Amino acid sequence: MIYDIVFHDGVLLTVNESCEAHENGVVGVVDNRIQMVGARTPGEELPRARRYIDACGGIIMPGLVNTHTHAAMALFRGLADDLPLLSWLEEHMFKAEARWVTPESVYAAARLAFAEMLLSGTTTCCDGYFFEDAVARAAQEAGIRAVLAQGILDFPAPGVPDPSKNVSTAMDFIGNWQNQSSRIIPGMFCHSPYTCGEQTLRRARDAADEAGCLLQIHVAETRGEVEKINEKTGRSPFAYLESIGLLTDKTLAVHAVWASEEDVRLIRDNGVGVSVTTESEMKLASGVAPLPRFLEAGLVVGLGTDGCASNNNQDMFQEMDFVAKLHKVNQLDPTALDARTALHLATRGGAAAVGLENEIGSIEVGKRADIITIDTAKPHWTPMYDPNSHLVYVAKGSDVKNVVIDGHLVVENRVVRTMNMGQVIEEVEKWALQIASSH
Amino acid sequence: MIYDIVFHDGVLLTVNESCEAHENGVVGVVDNRIQMVGARTPGEELPRARRYIDACGGIIMPGLVNTHTHAAMALFRGLADDLPLLSWLEEHMFKAEARWVTPESVYAAARLAFAEMLLSGTTTCCDGYFFEDAVARAAQEAGIRAVLAQGILDFPAPGVPDPSKNVSTAMDFIGNWQNQSSRIIPGMFCHSPYTCGEQTLRRARDAADEAGCLLQIHVAETRGEVEKINEKTGRSPFAYLESIGLLTDKTLAVHAVWASEEDVRLIRDNGVGVSVTTESEMKLASGVAPLPRFLEAGLVVGLGTDGCASNNNQDMFQEMDFVAKLHKVNQLDPTALDARTALHLATRGGAAAVGLENEIGSIEVGKRADIITIDTAKPHWTPMYDPNSHLVYVAKGSDVKNVVIDGHLVVENRVVRTMNMGQVIEEVEKWALQIASSH
Repeated sequence: MIYDIVFHDGVLLTVNESCEAHENGVVGVVDNRIQMVGARTPGEELPRARRYIDACGGIIMPGLVNTHTHAAMALFRGLADDLPLLSWLEEHMFKAEARWVTPESVYAAARLAFAEMLLSGTTTCCDGYFFEDAVARAAQEAGIRAVLAQGILDFPAPGVPDPSKNVSTAMDFIGNWQNQSSRIIPGMFCHSPYTCGEQTLRRARDAADEAGCLLQIHVAETRGEVEKINEKTGRSPFAYLESIGLLTDKTLAVHAVWASEEDVRLIRDNGVGVSVTTESEMKLASGVAPLPRFLEAGLVVGLGTDGCASNNNQDMFQEMDFVAKLHKVNQLDPTALDARTALHLATRGGAAAVGLENEIGSIEVGKRADIITIDTAKPHWTPMYDPNSHLVYVAKGSDVKNVVIDGHLVVENRVVRTMNMGQVIEEVEKWALQIASSH
Repeated sequence: MIYDIVFHDGVLLTVNESCEAHENGVVGVVDNRIQMVGARTPGEELPRARRYIDACGGIIMPGLVNTHTHAAMALFRGLADDLPLLSWLEEHMFKAEARWVTPESVYAAARLAFAEMLLSGTTTCCDGYFFEDAVARAAQEAGIRAVLAQGILDFPAPGVPDPSKNVSTAMDFIGNWQNQSSRIIPGMFCHSPYTCGEQTLRRARDAADEAGCLLQIHVAETRGEVEKINEKTGRSPFAYLESIGLLTDKTLAVHAVWASEEDVRLIRDNGVGVSVTTESEMKLASGVAPLPRFLEAGLVVGLGTDGCASNNNQDMFQEMDFVAKLHKVNQLDPTALDARTALHLATRGGAAAVGLENEIGSIEVGKRADIITIDTAKPHWTPMYDPNSHLVYVAKGSDVKNVVIDGHLVVENRVVRTMNMGQVIEEVEKWALQIASSH
């Protein structure tokens, strides 16, 4: 037996159901799947392999799953901060998007965001935006695993000037990418219950069901949204979506900041996945999602960074740190959300939220080989009594050393192998120069 | 004129009173002071210098000021997390400290923490702990600027088994280090109004006044503390401290999480500095300090990481990100605390809080040469519309490239020049092995 890749000489955190760990772990990969997970006794020979990845005493763990982003919004990273939500959205983001979002800028910015994700240990992301074909091409080339969807709005959007074509454009995207790649999983993305009318939502749901796809939707992000939907429908956003058939086990509800206890029941009973984007929800002052309650109720939950215009980074390690600390102080209870839970949310939890629980999210035989190694030979990692704690309260994305996705080594010793980084950065800077001079 | 060091080819953020910035900045250093601050026109020759530090298109800025830490607690980083406060403190921290805190372990762990600080751009820290002589030796060797104080408690502490000697031990420390180094500034540190009795507090204040030193004290960290002091004295912790003369413009009140409106008035009227340690206060679930209110009231405020047992890192860039995002969501107002304010707090604000506003905290002629450069040629820094925003919402400590303190280059291209890092890490790991096996 010759493996394609063998990981060795690190603390192996499988993040499987029983949180199994091995002091001196070994993982064998054949093609794009994990074929062996174990430990090595001192002096024991390594299995034969075409490539060895030495964790050098660091950590071997599953790649992180970012359940919500708009990768191409890296183009607008830091363009407008610290502003009231409506001014940020209407005076800055919508205007910038209307003017600057083209297939070329989306491709350039998505490449940059994927590079940032890879370099901080994210191996799967779930994205929704415009010109999503360009995002898919960028993801395919970058080597990242991606659940991707073309955004649906009931008003003119970049690339879709006629809103009556919004669902069909999204269906075309699914048609273009379904079964094209082992890493690109197309889906639907309705922006929200307040920007898509009932008919649009129903048509998108039907199309998603027909294609067997995930449907992403922002829900209950702000108090204002809850009031608006309540005025219009007499229901909470979640109750409204349920009443028109939008809540299924193929739905990913993003944010859910203002989910009520009754909403939690609807989410659970319908098997809906939830994506919590803590840093974005803090920065935009949307509110604190009742995440500990979600977990207590047994919901399927993952974490997300959201786009770079509202966070402003794609670092899932930082997201874990924020989520663990925020809920402690919010409940005045240091046990409210512990490090293991944060790690679970960023791996297995996220995988389940986007419907990939059988494929990714942990290091187990038969799952896809989405594996990262962490360099812990640094002052801020010293000493290390508990790797779970350090991954949440100490790790930075910049501690990620190697990244394998679908059996391919995409980051080697902090160098992205799938892209020319100088070129990727230069291309986005060219766009940014134009944007800055007109802003 | 030949400068000792010239910084060039970066965006210069002076963080002076008017937040002056130069697209292509130049800073000239002679000995340990800044002698020239300006900009260069394209093609203009650089001033003559013995050493040039090329920021390579990145950022040149003042080093960060960490106004509260217990450096040597790096020894216990991640030893006990996610626990109720009393169990964390009494079952874990106090026991671990009683057994493992020695001059040798304090020296080893402080060196490690200082390395972490330097590598993440902190040039000044304010520390209080036991065996502070060992901390001072470590700081002196590391090259960091440090306000240091021997901890005072009214019960037996490491190195001070007889509490009646607590103030005199702290005075000895001041005597040993006053005017010994341009970087080591000794002071007093009373642990808190609930662990030090009135007589101890008064004696410490008198001794600090006589030496012209800063007196640090944890105040109003938890609701429990406020209740306890109120029961005992009929006053809030701040009002009680004022009544016994503890609140002066040479006092640094740490935490102030539960400061009332009346307390804010006392803090302001007495010119007390405040240190807010957001990540620690979140992780221990102490509460959210009313920092926007402090700023509105014109208080002198800085940020701190607190020790590694309650954060668990020493990265002040991350601290800025947490502080800006936490207050936005806490007030449901995205304008509650903006990036420039966070940057001010971590530099000028911190300098003023520890009484060094004339010496450090900004890049201005006559101030000490405590300057860092940031490497921005990375995906997560791209594009850069506003460096202030990126320093708060994007930067990681690991983006710091060069660090000059008091005119000395202590970190060059991410390598600490003042310590053998392999040895520093190994030494702490030796201690940690013993601690882990007995924990």
